[in-house]
Amino acid sequence: MNGIKIVTIGGGSSYTPELIEGFIKRYDELPVNEIWLVDIEAGKEKLEIVGDLAKRMVKEANVPINIHLTLDRKEALKNADFVTTQFRVGQLEARAKDERIPLEYGVIGQETNGPGGLFKGLRTIPVILDIVKDMEEQCPNAWLINFTNPAGMVTEAVLRHSNWKKVIGLCNVPIGMKMMVANFLEVEPHRVEIDFAGLNHMVFGLHIYVDGKETTSDVLKRMTETNSTGTMENIVDLGWEPSFIEALGVLPCPYHRYYFKTDEMLDNEKENAVSSGTRAEVVKKLEDELFELYKDPTLSIKPPQLEKRGGAYYSEAACSLIDSIYNDRRDIQPVNTINRGAIQSIPYESAVEISCVITKEGPKPIIMDELPVAVQGLVSQIKSFERIAADSAVSGDYNKALLAMTINPLVPSDTIAKKILNEMLEAHKDYLPNFFEKVQ
Amino acid sequence: MNGIKIVTIGGGSSYTPELIEGFIKRYDELPVNEIWLVDIEAGKEKLEIVGDLAKRMVKEANVPINIHLTLDRKEALKNADFVTTQFRVGQLEARAKDERIPLEYGVIGQETNGPGGLFKGLRTIPVILDIVKDMEEQCPNAWLINFTNPAGMVTEAVLRHSNWKKVIGLCNVPIGMKMMVANFLEVEPHRVEIDFAGLNHMVFGLHIYVDGKETTSDVLKRMTETNSTGTMENIVDLGWEPSFIEALGVLPCPYHRYYFKTDEMLDNEKENAVSSGTRAEVVKKLEDELFELYKDPTLSIKPPQLEKRGGAYYSEAACSLIDSIYNDRRDIQPVNTINRGAIQSIPYESAVEISCVITKEGPKPIIMDELPVAVQGLVSQIKSFERIAADSAVSGDYNKALLAMTINPLVPSDTIAKKILNEMLEAHKDYLPNFFEKVQ
Amino acid sequence: MNGIKIVTIGGGSSYTPELIEGFIKRYDELPVNEIWLVDIEAGKEKLEIVGDLAKRMVKEANVPINIHLTLDRKEALKNADFVTTQFRVGQLEARAKDERIPLEYGVIGQETNGPGGLFKGLRTIPVILDIVKDMEEQCPNAWLINFTNPAGMVTEAVLRHSNWKKVIGLCNVPIGMKMMVANFLEVEPHRVEIDFAGLNHMVFGLHIYVDGKETTSDVLKRMTETNSTGTMENIVDLGWEPSFIEALGVLPCPYHRYYFKTDEMLDNEKENAVSSGTRAEVVKKLEDELFELYKDPTLSIKPPQLEKRGGAYYSEAACSLIDSIYNDRRDIQPVNTINRGAIQSIPYESAVEISCVITKEGPKPIIMDELPVAVQGLVSQIKSFERIAADSAVSGDYNKALLAMTINPLVPSDTIAKKILNEMLEAHKDYLPNFFEKVQ
Amino acid sequence: MNGIKIVTIGGGSSYTPELIEGFIKRYDELPVNEIWLVDIEAGKEKLEIVGDLAKRMVKEANVPINIHLTLDRKEALKNADFVTTQFRVGQLEARAKDERIPLEYGVIGQETNGPGGLFKGLRTIPVILDIVKDMEEQCPNAWLINFTNPAGMVTEAVLRHSNWKKVIGLCNVPIGMKMMVANFLEVEPHRVEIDFAGLNHMVFGLHIYVDGKETTSDVLKRMTETNSTGTMENIVDLGWEPSFIEALGVLPCPYHRYYFKTDEMLDNEKENAVSSGTRAEVVKKLEDELFELYKDPTLSIKPPQLEKRGGAYYSEAACSLIDSIYNDRRDIQPVNTINRGAIQSIPYESAVEISCVITKEGPKPIIMDELPVAVQGLVSQIKSFERIAADSAVSGDYNKALLAMTINPLVPSDTIAKKILNEMLEAHKDYLPNFFEKVQ
Repeated sequence: MNGIKIVTIGGGSSYTPELIEGFIKRYDELPVNEIWLVDIEAGKEKLEIVGDLAKRMVKEANVPINIHLTLDRKEALKNADFVTTQFRVGQLEARAKDERIPLEYGVIGQETNGPGGLFKGLRTIPVILDIVKDMEEQCPNAWLINFTNPAGMVTEAVLRHSNWKKVIGLCNVPIGMKMMVANFLEVEPHRVEIDFAGLNHMVFGLHIYVDGKETTSDVLKRMTETNSTGTMENIVDLGWEPSFIEALGVLPCPYHRYYFKTDEMLDNEKENAVSSGTRAEVVKKLEDELFELYKDPTLSIKPPQLEKRGGAYYSEAACSLIDSIYNDRRDIQPVNTINRGAIQSIPYESAVEISCVITKEGPKPIIMDELPVAVQGLVSQIKSFERIAADSAVSGDYNKALLAMTINPLVPSDTIAKKILNEMLEAHKDYLPNFFEKVQ
Repeated sequence: MNGIKIVTIGGGSSYTPELIEGFIKRYDELPVNEIWLVDIEAGKEKLEIVGDLAKRMVKEANVPINIHLTLDRKEALKNADFVTTQFRVGQLEARAKDERIPLEYGVIGQETNGPGGLFKGLRTIPVILDIVKDMEEQCPNAWLINFTNPAGMVTEAVLRHSNWKKVIGLCNVPIGMKMMVANFLEVEPHRVEIDFAGLNHMVFGLHIYVDGKETTSDVLKRMTETNSTGTMENIVDLGWEPSFIEALGVLPCPYHRYYFKTDEMLDNEKENAVSSGTRAEVVKKLEDELFELYKDPTLSIKPPQLEKRGGAYYSEAACSLIDSIYNDRRDIQPVNTINRGAIQSIPYESAVEISCVITKEGPKPIIMDELPVAVQGLVSQIKSFERIAADSAVSGDYNKALLAMTINPLVPSDTIAKKILNEMLEAHKDYLPNFFEKVQ
Repeated sequence: MNGIKIVTIGGGSSYTPELIEGFIKRYDELPVNEIWLVDIEAGKEKLEIVGDLAKRMVKEANVPINIHLTLDRKEALKNADFVTTQFRVGQLEARAKDERIPLEYGVIGQETNGPGGLFKGLRTIPVILDIVKDMEEQCPNAWLINFTNPAGMVTEAVLRHSNWKKVIGLCNVPIGMKMMVANFLEVEPHRVEIDFAGLNHMVFGLHIYVDGKETTSDVLKRMTETNSTGTMENIVDLGWEPSFIEALGVLPCPYHRYYFKTDEMLDNEKENAVSSGTRAEVVKKLEDELFELYKDPTLSIKPPQLEKRGGAYYSEAACSLIDSIYNDRRDIQPVNTINRGAIQSIPYESAVEISCVITKEGPKPIIMDELPVAVQGLVSQIKSFERIAADSAVSGDYNKALLAMTINPLVPSDTIAKKILNEMLEAHKDYLPNFFEKVQ
Repeated sequence: MNGIKIVTIGGGSSYTPELIEGFIKRYDELPVNEIWLVDIEAGKEKLEIVGDLAKRMVKEANVPINIHLTLDRKEALKNADFVTTQFRVGQLEARAKDERIPLEYGVIGQETNGPGGLFKGLRTIPVILDIVKDMEEQCPNAWLINFTNPAGMVTEAVLRHSNWKKVIGLCNVPIGMKMMVANFLEVEPHRVEIDFAGLNHMVFGLHIYVDGKETTSDVLKRMTETNSTGTMENIVDLGWEPSFIEALGVLPCPYHRYYFKTDEMLDNEKENAVSSGTRAEVVKKLEDELFELYKDPTLSIKPPQLEKRGGAYYSEAACSLIDSIYNDRRDIQPVNTINRGAIQSIPYESAVEISCVITKEGPKPIIMDELPVAVQGLVSQIKSFERIAADSAVSGDYNKALLAMTINPLVPSDTIAKKILNEMLEAHKDYLPNFFEKVQ
């Protein structure tokens, strides 16, 4: 390769400066010479704001990366080496509905593995499958690196509903868990290793090592007892019952609170919806503020306020992954990829989130211990949800969508599922062509 | 064998006349010559009432079956051919607590796969493992046929925590589903066949055949549309959303309402708790009435009122099973037995409820289709619950009990789980020696 | 159904009178009213001889079965209920080559799981796939019951290379093993039950029961020590080392001698080739004699000489199977069908030979113990051979054919494999259109 | 750790100077400060010769490694960090018998996966299990790194017949294959990566990459066509049929010639046995010459002649492995370890030879493609052989030994197996206490 070509779909996202910063930092080892930021008509203004900032950043850093802004996806994809996707169909307004509508029925929306995630999947999957079709034509050797949530469901859909195999789902949750442990232990992050296994936003740290020595049970004990299991910017920290975590024996991710502290999380979301707004609404404000900052023609670095946005370490995760593929580094990173027997309780051909060796040929899952018996059921349930949701997104089948909604562990009954489903279908009508070309 | 020896542990149960009637009817093909009814000191009075009725029944029927009543389990077990267990540790009072305590916290008790089932398991498993030890000594070639709930968890415990392999868990739910379909279709039951697979009280009818012709989707459609999916005496019939069942594609069991109609079931239980009492309390009254009837020295048949008790077809299931083992009939019956790969999404060595060929050497599961993707997760979750609950019952480990309670799909958080657990441990103290010999 | 329609492809086979006799005997329970015997132009004379005998047989028996003779396969298949296949592409001359050519290179031909079987498969599979295409059109609800060897490979090919699912492979080896055990024990056959598992001509009796009581190790010990493991008409009985069978712990089938007594079997085949001729040549003589008998217009029953032909119990196996499907008997019979996890060491979707419950919907494998570790490897090796051979038959790929030949356990090297392959390809040229339309 | 303690059992081996050289080279990153060379009384003289050379080598290299020579295994093991085993029970005389006796019966001896390997296993396994017992006492945190053949069977035995989990089997075959490919392509070895999977001496290169780009089919084609598949010092290069390798699609290891070129290998071994002697006899001469060299008090480096001995890259493999564990390098190396689902067609708990990430906690297999269908059978057969051989070594069960011998793919019949077994048991009597304390 003579310089790497990156295409970022949803390039007008507020996250883009993170990515740009990451490529700048790594320029010597990862010689990116073109970054194409792609967006749709409705996102044109943001694309230009972010794109201009990106151009100022590379200029300031004095690296020979060319930034291109375009609304023409096909042209952008031509001969791409890596395509990253971080778009949001229906934007934050749609996400706000994903969160608000279920709440009306006393149900957490949850934009990835909950009813909200179902609709985010229904809107996103047809688009990602279109992107994949364009890639088959324009850049058949590229890697697709997807950040768009629900990242597990989207990866599952690409793996099972297209012929595209070079897809990797990426999430900042595992890296966040590692940072959290490092902070708690007051050691540098590189001294901590965690064996990750599970699904996206449903991942567990099976073993925690410090300087290569296993310290899992000790760390778990101290973290829960001091109520320091930590969380992320976007998830309230309600702690854990120490006895529960001790018996569990593995480190849960922040999103597990939705399933193991459902009532408390629901109460919290209800309160927030009234006081500060749902997460989408909070993010909307943050983003508006960020874009105000981005407009400043004197700004030529990533503004520190971006880190509050909840996407901490995204750039780190993405650039590390691309770097390891490009340079065949064979280091270990947690990503979403095809299971192939690595986790015995999940179907062979499904997407899992797991520590992998990252090679030029992509990620290869590492065999680790089985998931604890205690969580195999919940993990399977979310996988069942993801699989049926993906099938429904592709077929536009109303009954399957109801089935996915009903089996979601956050949804308390088929009847409530139906009410939520019907209201959400109506609300998201414009973004669900597979459903509204068909008879319900 | 010269005449078969049956031992029934919990012989003072109100169900016993059903069993006696079953053995009387089948005497020609299944020559039982001894039935030992065993109970504990606290059950002595009931044992005598039921035992006297049993004696009058065999006399009236003029079959040479000897009925023995005893409190000495070991003596009774000597050289037994079949041991049936239908005891209830702590009796209906304990069950009432299993139902009432979770309700205080807004949680369904559910005496098999819910928090109530956890405690019924914790009380029952140490006793069944003791029985198995006695059987190893007294009747090493006998079959243990367990009716005591939670039948799945109890079978799991015997399979994984003892060396006894000749154990079968039995339930009247599958036979009830078959009868329900036959009634709906207005055909004789023997013309209906259903392929059953899943777990106890979490079993599905994968295929429904009438006269050997598959009619699953047609029957499902008509049953849900006419709100005739039916239920059992003890579970309120709240119907199903037709679209949900259509997408599911298999026949759920009545207990699935707890998981797919949780909120509505909870509301219903709360109402009942106030109006008619919990199920245990209703049953208590029914039983008191039954025992009044049983006392009548002129009664020498099973009184028809027994069928309201909820145990319809129990005798049918038990006697059919014993008959098929004794006579090596190789017919097909749904029972709880070791999985051995029959259901791929459940561990190889765990108990499943599945259609089996019943032979002299016991049940052999029949390979059928996989469980639908939509339910693999929930079924796994209940299996995870059963496994950890069984482990906790054996070890008396508080943390594991909390883990089991927390992962139960009816329980909304670790903190609520802990409150329920603590209150129930205290309430059932006298029946939990494994927990109260140890430090919590 | 108003009377059953049977179509027998390869109807001019010397086995046909067996089948006819079977249907006559069962007429009351299995009301066959049409049997269509189909053959090709080259087999017309035999078809007429056998067909006339068949007509005399039904007349003599006074049952209203209509016998039709035809060379028009499509017409015959119209609305068939059961299609049995017992044809031989290239007739006994081809089989003689299957046996003779490998012998020239010091290799056993073995018409099913050896080099001979590879070629029999290459000739047969394209034809069976054509038949299946005709069935899709003419009789989409019929069952295909295949006797044509190599029955395992042929079933594998239909399962994996067509959309036809209603296929069952049938063999008389398991029933022969059961008869052998019954004879040895001097009990009536119905008192013996054997759990069969493995592949076609590579099947094991995992457990032997007499009157429902397991007697496996005792029977094995006595049979091997008295050198009475028995065999079939077409396989020389070389006995077994008692210590070997004792450690094996299961009953091998007669064909296992090819793999566990390779050198002795080879010597024997070499001798026979010189003295009495190969098996095909012996059979040729027997068949000529049989057809002479069949021509006798006074003959109106199956002549007893047919039993020497090696196909003992074929009629029994076929008619029992059809009867159990038609009458939904749910009894247990060993057949070749899709594995679906019944034998863990064989791929889920591959054909296995295993005891099944026979229902109106077809065979359902019964879960039994795993194959002994000692034979899992050999069984897998034959399955690998069958799979690659089937793939090669469909694609006409020379390299795959060489691969299949080389991995066969009877073939000692890639170079010898190549020589045998090349000579056999040339010899069977006329029956291998997939290979000779293509460039080698 | 303050300096690493290495214990080498079989320290008097001619390979030892390789190891010493490896530790000297890596001293800066792998600070070994003690190497204990342990041998038995019969090996005392060699131990001293080799030990003295080792001492001269460290002195010459000026590294602070202390060399200890001892016959007291327990003392040596005290607080060891790594224990390497490279002993040979019965020495080369025993190996010569492993090779000669089968040849008398027309069977290849093959010291790892053949009849010779069975006996090497029977002699070695009781000793390794004794070593493990000593390690439990003396150095419970050490890693056992076994080079002693048959390395797969020995690893299997430790995994399944002891409680010791920190065991790794090591072989120079994969590294040899990598070197061979690099030589053929004329590139530096570090530019070649191969995904290895299979069993010891039965391993395949599933994918070959040069500079991170897959070139498997191209390399295979060119290698076979130019007859350059290469082999090892101790295995004759008979080439491969190009069509066979093309259809196989993966790189076989040199030992595969025993199974896919059996007749030719047998002829070659017979010739050698007459002309130059069996491999053991050749090695004996080489070793005698080496020990003559080692005695030279002026020699203080590893003599170049050692490389002819067949153990090329052993030191490289061992020192790299120890280095990666000690330094938690997380690089990829092929080793023998527990499968845990990495290769689906091999039992979960069995030993496999597979590319692993090497961490401080040991090797973690990487998920790769399944083994090609064509070889799953043969690989399973060798695994069956290894498992039964290991069981027999532990129990001293004659019948199991016969079973292992009979199912070996090199052995043509149960009767020949019995003859070879009986003669070998007699010949190795002194080293088979498990067999000769018992009744045969």
